[in-house]
Amino acid sequence: MTAPGLTLFELAGANSELRFSPHCWKTRMALAHKGLEADRVPWRFVDKAKIAFSGQSLVPLLVHGDENISDSWRIALYLEKSFSARPSLFGASSAIPVAHFVNTWADATLLPAIARVILLDIYNCVDAGDRSYLRSSREKYFGMSLEAVVADQPAHLSAFRTALQPLRRMLKKQDFICGEVPAYADYCVFGMFMWARCCSTIELLEDDDTVLPWRERLLDSFGRLARSAPSRQYPDGRPLMTEEGTVGAPNSALSVTSGLDRN
Amino acid sequence: MTAPGLTLFELAGANSELRFSPHCWKTRMALAHKGLEADRVPWRFVDKAKIAFSGQSLVPLLVHGDENISDSWRIALYLEKSFSARPSLFGASSAIPVAHFVNTWADATLLPAIARVILLDIYNCVDAGDRSYLRSSREKYFGMSLEAVVADQPAHLSAFRTALQPLRRMLKKQDFICGEVPAYADYCVFGMFMWARCCSTIELLEDDDTVLPWRERLLDSFGRLARSAPSRQYPDGRPLMTEEGTVGAPNSALSVTSGLDRN
Repeated sequence: MTAPGLTLFELAGANSELRFSPHCWKTRMALAHKGLEADRVPWRFVDKAKIAFSGQSLVPLLVHGDENISDSWRIALYLEKSFSARPSLFGASSAIPVAHFVNTWADATLLPAIARVILLDIYNCVDAGDRSYLRSSREKYFGMSLEAVVADQPAHLSAFRTALQPLRRMLKKQDFICGEVPAYADYCVFGMFMWARCCSTIELLEDDDTVLPWRERLLDSFGRLARSAPSRQYPDGRPLMTEEGTVGAPNSALSVTSGLDRN
Repeated sequence: MTAPGLTLFELAGANSELRFSPHCWKTRMALAHKGLEADRVPWRFVDKAKIAFSGQSLVPLLVHGDENISDSWRIALYLEKSFSARPSLFGASSAIPVAHFVNTWADATLLPAIARVILLDIYNCVDAGDRSYLRSSREKYFGMSLEAVVADQPAHLSAFRTALQPLRRMLKKQDFICGEVPAYADYCVFGMFMWARCCSTIELLEDDDTVLPWRERLLDSFGRLARSAPSRQYPDGRPLMTEEGTVGAPNSALSVTSGLDRN
């Protein structure tokens, strides 16, 4: 279902179909939850002029008629209000503040933990024109070179898995953060996994992690929207109709290029 | 307002008025939120026989007529259902699963981080008869002596403050986890702070931390219920009617004794 006038600016890699931003993925899943489609415009860090009309310089940026909404959290609130007759992203207004906490948990805890694992992979995914910006901004943030950030990758991966403990423990009692079916608080966390999936071949989860089936269920939501999206392993997207076991070996030859803390 | 037949078994220290369990504090705040009072029975780790009638060995244990409900999360759900006409602990049923995530975040992230700061203080608060159990169970959990767990206290305090980052960031946008007024998800986290307040003189927060005013507002909720509760600093409770500035110097001479992962 297309709602005329919805345009989403998404961070793209060297391969313009590689849309890897965790925050853009939150919005992508929110749109799907609402049964909405948007014209998805690839955007790169150097393209500040392209979205200057919005009065700011971050993506995701949703344009809806005369409205320009940036910041994935604000976009979710906007979609909830503007498309209130469609499936709710929160369930009830009283659930919104608590979902906001989950969003900040994902951003403040998971995002930096994943960055320490995949930062160099992200660098290798972003467009040539974005590399200088990505390197300088992230090296300033971490206070060291990209190479140094990821130097002890096994330790960082272990720290990330430890940080997942609240989610892991909760998923032993319920299928999704939002209960029996996923909603926005799930997408806030899932966006982080999509970021890694798009940019890196590293598996963040161990085989027996209870977080894994949750992630797999979300990959399959909305007609396998996330699973079929172009990623580093599957630059042309994973075939929608192919069974798991019959998909060919991943093509990891794709040289694509990425971003850390966009909203 | 007293609802006949509500009895709450709470973990107590050497001073039986010192009720320091973080999980019991979640329940205490939940009862206050519902405008309910319970007969509060002090309980110690060695008192397994005292609650054997409930079919399990953990506190908080709420007894309501013929019902025995243990586990603070299950107690919250029970109170919400049984006293549905009173102020809601969650706001709407759709908010319950997300609040559950906040509860597991508090238990899985904050609780062990705080334990690494105050474990020896807890040991010094529990009753003489509980010390052996506390030492052996916690030393088994951490794989080292209580003294070794807290050896690098400044580093553990710093790690705890880092773990608070999601809460800190969220509180810049809203007054409580549950929005404009506190509810159960707030109490899940606040219980952790009450645990530290009751057992230790260490200040977990820096003066300019945005988490601090949130904690202070909760200390003052329900007629300063939490602020006036006996603690290590204020063994007889902090006077209800005294202004902050006029309260005398803390009496930290109290030798009391505590628990880690009760539910």
